[in-house]
Amino acid sequence: MSPKITTELLKQLRQVMKNPKYVQEPVQAYIVPSGDAHQSEYIAPCDCRRAFISGFDGSAGTAIVTEQHAAMWTDGRYFLQAAHQMDNNWTLMKMGLKDTPTQEDWLVSVLPEGSKVGVDPFIIPADQWKRMSKVLRSAGHDLVPVKENLINTIWTDCPQRPCKPLITLDLSYTGVSWRDKIVALRSKMAERKVMWFVVTALDEVAWLFNLRGSDVEYNPVFFAYAVIGMNTIRLFIDGDRIMDPAVREHLQLDSTLEPEFKIQVMPYGSILSELQAVGAGLSPKEKVWLSDKASYALTETVPKAYRYLTPYTPICIAKAVKNAAETEGMRRAHIKDAVALCELFNWLEKEVPKGTVTEIIAADKAEEFRSQQKDFVELSFATISSTGPNGAIIHYKPVPETNRTLSVNEIYLLDSGAQYKDGTTDVTRTMHFGTPSAYEKECFTYVLKGHIAVSAAIFPNGTKGHLLDSFARSALWDCGLDYLHGTGHGVGSFLNVHEGPCGISYKTFADEPLEAGMIVSDEPGYYEDGSFGIRIENVVLVIPAETKYNFKNRGSLTFEPLTLVPIQTKMIDVNLLTEKECNWVNEYHQKCREVVGAELERQGRHEALRWLLRETESLARVQ
Amino acid sequence: MSPKITTELLKQLRQVMKNPKYVQEPVQAYIVPSGDAHQSEYIAPCDCRRAFISGFDGSAGTAIVTEQHAAMWTDGRYFLQAAHQMDNNWTLMKMGLKDTPTQEDWLVSVLPEGSKVGVDPFIIPADQWKRMSKVLRSAGHDLVPVKENLINTIWTDCPQRPCKPLITLDLSYTGVSWRDKIVALRSKMAERKVMWFVVTALDEVAWLFNLRGSDVEYNPVFFAYAVIGMNTIRLFIDGDRIMDPAVREHLQLDSTLEPEFKIQVMPYGSILSELQAVGAGLSPKEKVWLSDKASYALTETVPKAYRYLTPYTPICIAKAVKNAAETEGMRRAHIKDAVALCELFNWLEKEVPKGTVTEIIAADKAEEFRSQQKDFVELSFATISSTGPNGAIIHYKPVPETNRTLSVNEIYLLDSGAQYKDGTTDVTRTMHFGTPSAYEKECFTYVLKGHIAVSAAIFPNGTKGHLLDSFARSALWDCGLDYLHGTGHGVGSFLNVHEGPCGISYKTFADEPLEAGMIVSDEPGYYEDGSFGIRIENVVLVIPAETKYNFKNRGSLTFEPLTLVPIQTKMIDVNLLTEKECNWVNEYHQKCREVVGAELERQGRHEALRWLLRETESLARVQ
Repeated sequence: MSPKITTELLKQLRQVMKNPKYVQEPVQAYIVPSGDAHQSEYIAPCDCRRAFISGFDGSAGTAIVTEQHAAMWTDGRYFLQAAHQMDNNWTLMKMGLKDTPTQEDWLVSVLPEGSKVGVDPFIIPADQWKRMSKVLRSAGHDLVPVKENLINTIWTDCPQRPCKPLITLDLSYTGVSWRDKIVALRSKMAERKVMWFVVTALDEVAWLFNLRGSDVEYNPVFFAYAVIGMNTIRLFIDGDRIMDPAVREHLQLDSTLEPEFKIQVMPYGSILSELQAVGAGLSPKEKVWLSDKASYALTETVPKAYRYLTPYTPICIAKAVKNAAETEGMRRAHIKDAVALCELFNWLEKEVPKGTVTEIIAADKAEEFRSQQKDFVELSFATISSTGPNGAIIHYKPVPETNRTLSVNEIYLLDSGAQYKDGTTDVTRTMHFGTPSAYEKECFTYVLKGHIAVSAAIFPNGTKGHLLDSFARSALWDCGLDYLHGTGHGVGSFLNVHEGPCGISYKTFADEPLEAGMIVSDEPGYYEDGSFGIRIENVVLVIPAETKYNFKNRGSLTFEPLTLVPIQTKMIDVNLLTEKECNWVNEYHQKCREVVGAELERQGRHEALRWLLRETESLARVQ
Repeated sequence: MSPKITTELLKQLRQVMKNPKYVQEPVQAYIVPSGDAHQSEYIAPCDCRRAFISGFDGSAGTAIVTEQHAAMWTDGRYFLQAAHQMDNNWTLMKMGLKDTPTQEDWLVSVLPEGSKVGVDPFIIPADQWKRMSKVLRSAGHDLVPVKENLINTIWTDCPQRPCKPLITLDLSYTGVSWRDKIVALRSKMAERKVMWFVVTALDEVAWLFNLRGSDVEYNPVFFAYAVIGMNTIRLFIDGDRIMDPAVREHLQLDSTLEPEFKIQVMPYGSILSELQAVGAGLSPKEKVWLSDKASYALTETVPKAYRYLTPYTPICIAKAVKNAAETEGMRRAHIKDAVALCELFNWLEKEVPKGTVTEIIAADKAEEFRSQQKDFVELSFATISSTGPNGAIIHYKPVPETNRTLSVNEIYLLDSGAQYKDGTTDVTRTMHFGTPSAYEKECFTYVLKGHIAVSAAIFPNGTKGHLLDSFARSALWDCGLDYLHGTGHGVGSFLNVHEGPCGISYKTFADEPLEAGMIVSDEPGYYEDGSFGIRIENVVLVIPAETKYNFKNRGSLTFEPLTLVPIQTKMIDVNLLTEKECNWVNEYHQKCREVVGAELERQGRHEALRWLLRETESLARVQ
């Protein structure tokens, strides 16, 4: 991977930062956040402005360019990747390390007195605007909204915003109609005494209307906003796609409906003026509910006194708790996904020794096997197919320049997943196709112990996910090891592979309590720069747990793995496992055999079935 | 315990809430927080206003009185106690339960439109004022400072503010002179570019000047403020105590000193006007550093643009990391404390079967044995001496009405500690003087497993204490049990038994990372209302840990128990312990034998020594 040469681009950007055509007054710094106008994690090519200006294309990062400096903040998953992709014009700011300044503090330390710091108000979330502008103001600087995105002014070949056809989901997939979702939402609004709710996150719009799209790769969403009143529904969406008869019928656009369920379709670009009109018409006590992560531009449209901001919207919270139809769909999706991976690993075992399988070939083969499964739509994220030292780059994606050949001498890490119409998958397995070293097995086994500690944890109702994070690290910590990422994230149901409001991380303090029906990943790891990476990831469903006692009648929860793919026993040092851990592995493999075995049989995939049976033989502990 | 009858008092309070002599406009609600003007947890009798108005005298709680309602917010430690101590005029608001409203939300729900909510600006911390006033304002109400404390206006026999003599501590106790502490503080101030630092917490004043007092029971502090400039030191303190020659010499009040170390002594009550003068004389960029928990009254004195507020002050952080002299002192104090407890438990074992020992007698006996030890000053908190169902009242203190006789049929829980000139102790042991039931042993063993899980935890440098909290609960959670309090708190060195900025709790999100030299408690428990309480508490020192590997060169930490008192093996179900846990208990008891045994021998306490040897015999697991 050679870095992007950005000298000329930065020169152009610094010119437009002073150009009165775009800025009222020159800005001494310009912030380029990752997101789009919906604060999406995964973004469309037209929104990859930070990658365009810097070369660094990881999923998280913020660039700030001043007259003298260009700096990039990103987290531990991307330290290596960012260092590889950026040229010498850029300084890497490693978030999470003690000595790394925040963006605000850094700006204060480098800017001349009384500076203006510009940012696109559609791209910056309101909560971040507030935090930054407060610090900057108290140091004598100003955060200013720059209407025209300055990257767009220099990005001559910027791609068009996508506008692809929509997919409608019927009740067998969603379990609840969009009308019933609107009813539930309005009841939450009434509870909080708000009159309007603005849906800004793309997955929330998709979930609310039981629609899916493909405007953003890997995320089955489409560019849209919605504004829900107590008696009105406005959907802001562009293109012919709303003319599709299936979509019109699904949304009942041409039926005679009670007025409160009549959807008014408006152009995507009219959200700002419509919201301004809503804001202007408000009487006292008519609040407007927005996520505090909605863009500063939209938030500012609603007069401050009328804003009701929360970190998680009622849609985000409702969406996280999967109903029976969704849970069953997720189960089906994970069985199909396991079938594809059994095929893949069986194939890899035969092919890797020949020295012809590269990371990219392996990733493509995984996609090929997945695409053979029913209701397959696309991948749920860019496949991380990494061998040897590439495995230590936590969010690695193989490209021709880095593409390494799998061998019997290196650990192979595959983190991959797919979107099926009935569910979203995300699974990581770490394999060795030769003979792992004692040290590799030792590290793998610590990671496995952490994985089991979370997966088998029993905890009271009302527990927040971050309280489970240390369970995943304890075995590693005992030996002085650790990993620089969280342990788990919420997973959508045929939606974004990363979703709030729950998760398992030492960093997440604003997570909502885990509830039965929520789905998260469990993915501890261990990474040795320059050598190898290990990660073991299952998607797990929060379920009620039976316990001997029941303190204060609170009830307990635990996890049920939805992912049913063998964990390579060759990599396990059985003597490091407790009896309980050993039993967990054996029971897990027994379930893989039964459930995935039956599906392999049904699909007539006999060779993969033999591979599964071999890989799920019982571990025996030496007593 | 019979509740305090508050009908008449509430009537009087509601009258003064409308009396123009005290309030500019009538207030529809009046808030009575726990604290004093220094936001102390333990307060002098003259500051026990919340207990006076409600009867509830636990260490944490906030009362709010409106024209119609009287409500008390407190946490899980005090639900039972508050319910016992308050009459029917009061509604108990159980903090931490899902359906309990916050004070602000409750006020909004009960107040008529456009209400005024009054509070003493000296008693409410600035951060809490900010939060409350924001919510109230957005609901159309106003939080207003009421200069004269309204409780004081109806509290006819309110005691005088104490003003007791000071104790000076020399270098052998403190390790660092007050001058060197001032130098270090000024260097932290320079780092943050602040010109003034206002010391508002009583333990911070005491620590900074290496002085102790006895104005507040259990906490060796004295009423004072300090304002430290880059070239000036002002100490605000009342009474003749500053005329004591030892104090004058300690503070070098009569010596010729460099002006920047010359302490100006001023009356306690002049802090507000002096701070106003400081505030008025500020030029741009001359910031004043205050804790964000300093009183609203003091914080308001500094113009907003000049305030530099942090959750933890540099003194709080420096004070938490004990130096070698302090650590050695803490070790000595804990050995003496263990001697006293060996004597006590030996005595209880003989006396309890006679049926003559009450909770109060046991508590008094504990104090008697402690007072025989060198450098004993006072207790470090009200002894929790509780048997049977009283043990389930987490912060129980025996009073004649509740005083229960210890017996061979009930569990006895003793949570006690002392202030010695060389250190502060806090230890809980749970004992049975007859034959515990299998269920009692089972619960005790889960608590012990949690205690060991924290005490033996190895974790990376930079880890915050709250990440360890779940380790203490895991064994209980597995069986559906839990406890409704945090797992540990910071402990001062001959200072407050509860101190920031570190701790181990599921609730604490603003804790600072643990560092070698910090001292915290490790005290999981289990409580069954109406039956019994179990808690096992040691004070532990954070120390570097040796690990097999050293990821990113971060280094690891673990804990060394300073408390060296046997854990009753009779209460342990050995078969529930892992081999590692069993070894931990045996090694811990071996250390108690060696260290405390030698001191018992030295003090000629042979009977207690025999008790110690018997109580520390090795556990043997049935394989």
